[in-house]
Amino acid sequence: MSEKNETNPGSSPSEKTFSPIEWRDDGLWLLDQTQLPGREVWLECDRPEVVAEAIRRLSVRGAPAIGVSAAYGLVVGLRGTPSEDLERRFEEVYELLATTRPTAVNLRWALDRGRRVFERHRGEGTEATVAALLEWAHGLHSADVETNRRMGAHGSALFHPGDRVLTHCNAGALATAGYGTAVGVITAGFDAGKVAQVWVDETRPLLQGSRLTAWELDRLGIPFRVVTDSSVGALMSREMVDRIVVGADRIAANGDTANKIGTYTVAVLAARHRVPFYVAAPTSTIDPDTATGNEIPIEVRDSDEVTRFHGVEVSPAAAEAQNFAFDVTPHELIAGIITEVGVLEPPYVDSIRDALGRAQEPTG
Amino acid sequence: MSEKNETNPGSSPSEKTFSPIEWRDDGLWLLDQTQLPGREVWLECDRPEVVAEAIRRLSVRGAPAIGVSAAYGLVVGLRGTPSEDLERRFEEVYELLATTRPTAVNLRWALDRGRRVFERHRGEGTEATVAALLEWAHGLHSADVETNRRMGAHGSALFHPGDRVLTHCNAGALATAGYGTAVGVITAGFDAGKVAQVWVDETRPLLQGSRLTAWELDRLGIPFRVVTDSSVGALMSREMVDRIVVGADRIAANGDTANKIGTYTVAVLAARHRVPFYVAAPTSTIDPDTATGNEIPIEVRDSDEVTRFHGVEVSPAAAEAQNFAFDVTPHELIAGIITEVGVLEPPYVDSIRDALGRAQEPTG
Repeated sequence: MSEKNETNPGSSPSEKTFSPIEWRDDGLWLLDQTQLPGREVWLECDRPEVVAEAIRRLSVRGAPAIGVSAAYGLVVGLRGTPSEDLERRFEEVYELLATTRPTAVNLRWALDRGRRVFERHRGEGTEATVAALLEWAHGLHSADVETNRRMGAHGSALFHPGDRVLTHCNAGALATAGYGTAVGVITAGFDAGKVAQVWVDETRPLLQGSRLTAWELDRLGIPFRVVTDSSVGALMSREMVDRIVVGADRIAANGDTANKIGTYTVAVLAARHRVPFYVAAPTSTIDPDTATGNEIPIEVRDSDEVTRFHGVEVSPAAAEAQNFAFDVTPHELIAGIITEVGVLEPPYVDSIRDALGRAQEPTG
Repeated sequence: MSEKNETNPGSSPSEKTFSPIEWRDDGLWLLDQTQLPGREVWLECDRPEVVAEAIRRLSVRGAPAIGVSAAYGLVVGLRGTPSEDLERRFEEVYELLATTRPTAVNLRWALDRGRRVFERHRGEGTEATVAALLEWAHGLHSADVETNRRMGAHGSALFHPGDRVLTHCNAGALATAGYGTAVGVITAGFDAGKVAQVWVDETRPLLQGSRLTAWELDRLGIPFRVVTDSSVGALMSREMVDRIVVGADRIAANGDTANKIGTYTVAVLAARHRVPFYVAAPTSTIDPDTATGNEIPIEVRDSDEVTRFHGVEVSPAAAEAQNFAFDVTPHELIAGIITEVGVLEPPYVDSIRDALGRAQEPTG
């Protein structure tokens, strides 16, 4: 389905960031995160089906990264389409990409902005439309990195010197177009001399913490230790955690936040131990059309992700798992939402409305 | 170090229980639980070093099973010792077994009772002493099963028809001399027509839930589903859990309970969602000399248990894990402690003192 390439031309450990999404040689390449940390394999996405499949099987993952990949996916999907077919083809590619994963709102956010670009340019023919979409996708890509750096600057002010910060799943460069949301905030806090150590939840079943966040922190030179998800309570009861920063897949208008399964558990423990719990996400992750967390659709993934590991059965053959991909953390457990326009505080209904007003619309 | 045997002569799926510890052909055999659910391999323990190693590497695990294995370990260790060496050899074997794992109190409880038997009989020479210890160990073995069945009868009364019961780790037949503590209570509740389904936490890092509890429930014909440890919050917020029963490795005089890492997290979530959280353990797991949970020593195990899986590195090579084997659930989160003498209720300082008075001393 795609060519593979063992080099990673766009990244260097000294840069403090890299992107899992690259446009090179006039084509889209995605870092196959399912193979990290063992191998760095890039997938050439020459058809929109390859992009959709990469999103579905989590080769590319994380709400912002999914959004940017889908934007490039429109470009890949429209190239070479006869002008008279452009309209039909756009709907086809839009649908293909929009239905890959239900929870992350950035996916539809990006596709809807892509639709506006498409509608402005479709009268100019395929080549001009594709060129306009590509320029827009590049803009979205670099705007995401810029957004994350702003989020880092705002969030870094929340840390105190010596902080041991816990994060769940991976909300790093790998989950975005670069720099990361939660990991970006932690990186900024480390660069400011405040974050002393990171606790990395392994994040079962797919181990985005121990595989991906650990891999990023190792590259960044930020001290970290991995723990099983179920160790978080013990860490907090021993006063080994000072602050928590996680990402988000969708934030409702009242601040309720869907994020990787297990986030809610961390938030409940944090409340009991009075450890400040922050969400870091761009305003594009806020869905003003979703009033509360109850309305956020929660993806249920295959049982096998839990009962098999690297091809080994870890449960008896008859065992079935219940595998929710996300959970919802109610707004009252969240000390602040770190966005590119500032740190939002409760009551979130007001601060979110205000932030969405202030947030500049990205290109397109 | 030991012979292996692929058959399991002592168990039958229809019996509703089996023992992971067997004395046959005048020798001690332990089921190697590290190889479940894939293979049923029995270890012949012809030297006390083999017993100690089996405990240390979790081939045999669970506080009651460790206690009974250590009892047989004294027999294996003293056989063939010249009478004049008996005293020195007893101390050597005692020390070897006592230092295998620090948290479970049943280990030292069994060894100290073994010492009493030894002291009563050592004047009669090696053969008589070993025979007395073996008789005592057999008594301990069958008393543990009987204790668990009584616990089941007491605990089963706590369930309501249709209950979906969550358990963490494995406190089943495999963790005891047979029938199980928490799983025994659940089995009794299922047999009484009340438990409808079991939620099995996988229990990272060693997956005693998805590997062992799932294997037992499958044999017992009790419906179950596996979930990652971090799914428990989502299950409770969706009102999918009615009751929780877990085992214990040591219970302090005030009811604070050390159990497998992650138990505390489940208890905190249960408190938030008002789901009754029960501990099932024989009175031998209560340590009246430990005033509170703060004084329970918590074993820290190898980083590799977290960062490697079936020989595959799941974290970058530089990653180190913090791997606490247990955590402590404070007594105020526990709705009841199910023992063989009844269900203890708060205030535990009183109900535990009373229960220890009522508990009959087992053989020896």
